[in-house]
Amino acid sequence: MSTDGTRVAIAPEVDEHIAAAVSGAGGRLVDLDDAEVLVWLGGHEDFPPLPDSVRWVALRLAGIEAFIDAGIIDDARVWTNASGFYAENVAEHALALLLAGLRRVPEAVRDGWDKEPIDTAVRSLHGSTVGILGAGGIARSLIPRLRACGAQVVAVNRSGRPVDGAAQTLPADRLAEVWGRVDHVVVAAPSTAETRHMVGVAALAALPTHAWVVNVARGTLVDQAALLDAVRSGSIAGAALDVTDPEPPSPDDPILHDPRIIVTPHVANPSSGLTRTLAPWIAENLRRFRSGAEMLSTVGPDSRY
Amino acid sequence: MSTDGTRVAIAPEVDEHIAAAVSGAGGRLVDLDDAEVLVWLGGHEDFPPLPDSVRWVALRLAGIEAFIDAGIIDDARVWTNASGFYAENVAEHALALLLAGLRRVPEAVRDGWDKEPIDTAVRSLHGSTVGILGAGGIARSLIPRLRACGAQVVAVNRSGRPVDGAAQTLPADRLAEVWGRVDHVVVAAPSTAETRHMVGVAALAALPTHAWVVNVARGTLVDQAALLDAVRSGSIAGAALDVTDPEPPSPDDPILHDPRIIVTPHVANPSSGLTRTLAPWIAENLRRFRSGAEMLSTVGPDSRY
Repeated sequence: MSTDGTRVAIAPEVDEHIAAAVSGAGGRLVDLDDAEVLVWLGGHEDFPPLPDSVRWVALRLAGIEAFIDAGIIDDARVWTNASGFYAENVAEHALALLLAGLRRVPEAVRDGWDKEPIDTAVRSLHGSTVGILGAGGIARSLIPRLRACGAQVVAVNRSGRPVDGAAQTLPADRLAEVWGRVDHVVVAAPSTAETRHMVGVAALAALPTHAWVVNVARGTLVDQAALLDAVRSGSIAGAALDVTDPEPPSPDDPILHDPRIIVTPHVANPSSGLTRTLAPWIAENLRRFRSGAEMLSTVGPDSRY
Repeated sequence: MSTDGTRVAIAPEVDEHIAAAVSGAGGRLVDLDDAEVLVWLGGHEDFPPLPDSVRWVALRLAGIEAFIDAGIIDDARVWTNASGFYAENVAEHALALLLAGLRRVPEAVRDGWDKEPIDTAVRSLHGSTVGILGAGGIARSLIPRLRACGAQVVAVNRSGRPVDGAAQTLPADRLAEVWGRVDHVVVAAPSTAETRHMVGVAALAALPTHAWVVNVARGTLVDQAALLDAVRSGSIAGAALDVTDPEPPSPDDPILHDPRIIVTPHVANPSSGLTRTLAPWIAENLRRFRSGAEMLSTVGPDSRY
């Protein structure tokens, strides 16, 4: 093994897929004490003290709130998460949920060949307008998918700075205007004090009755009791959630037992096989680190978006 | 009302949406005896004898086999179906079914929050190769959707003439090569003697074990007993069908009761609200008829592909 590669520690346990990717991208596996780079595959609870030699820490997560809250992420080195990598996967799941809702797939499966009620309920994504709350990586990955399906997008971000591919971008302080302009909503915003219950009673009352609400971000962004009321009353058509509040829901949570609410168990980014699919991303960032190029998905102590 | 518009009959019953579209496109409603154009909203069983004055018949269907078999479609006038209109809708449903399968949406809904088995089973469309059997309007509408999702397409048509947007196009006589080159298959071919059971025992054995088979065309194109065996044995991952053989299936048909087989009741093109959504298509073709431009979706006595 070469001794002149970038010194990379993989912890808390060495993973074969990540190790192969590191070697292939010019890295050399070492213990943390001697590392320039730490690929941290664990959570925030057992994050180790870092030697000064570590100049880059690669986290395997997209949502890194816990690392920030714990004061782990500092200004002394480069930190990356995997938000760009996850964005494609989450955007695909969001599209799957929206289409499953519009096309009434779970209801069709549950009810057998009961054509008339399904035929009457099916709607097309084609020709509709979808609001995307949050204009980060998930939105950037979702927008071209929606456009290829013949839908247009109204994006909402903090600044209101136009988002590529969106027909319109609204700043967060004009969120109340969104509900009347869209057919459906996809929640893809970060979890903050400001975004808590951003889809609440007022939003649900203002959305059209054919609206589907999709949440692939965090359960707390949607007022789940209000959502349940809205679906039950017919104020909206349905909801499709990969995240819930609380999570996991209790087995008797009504959110799991309404035919118009689709719940998948937080699997937009499956954790099984994660390192296998994450490995090329780590390799790409290692190549960038070695060459001094701009790295993907850098984060800092103040990163919340 | 103007008396110089194109004379259009709408039968067997006048529909308000179609009537408004006809008037807006320069048509004038008349009885069939006096018509230049017949918009026929019925089936083949009660299709009326046509006066010689009728120079164009617009059928509301995409699959017109029954009209051809009954000898209704002749060479004496222009006939159109609505295949281009339906293609977008069917392509959307095909994508919904494929994503619902890959993302295990119905299983997740049925099993409540049972994360581990779903997390392990979820796969991404991103990075996969999808075979599309049949390269007509559905394929043309589906290909850009799949590409926006990060998938590539292997198309199969009769001639093997390259299909726009497909990474590869194979002629039908090389169908046996397809199964080993793709991750998933979407059946979107016409129903003919040659296409019957085109997805049969050999295909199902040759597809990868992670494969999903989607059928949005006709139930007879898939050997349904072989499909059931393949899913039960784990030879493929699952199937998602909007069409069955026979159709409707009997309530105790095992196809309706396997957790890895998603069945929607032939709703890719919902018949509810059909004339409302079909109306702009009829209007466009009427404008083309009046100006002598090439018409959309013309068909003839030999239209079988």
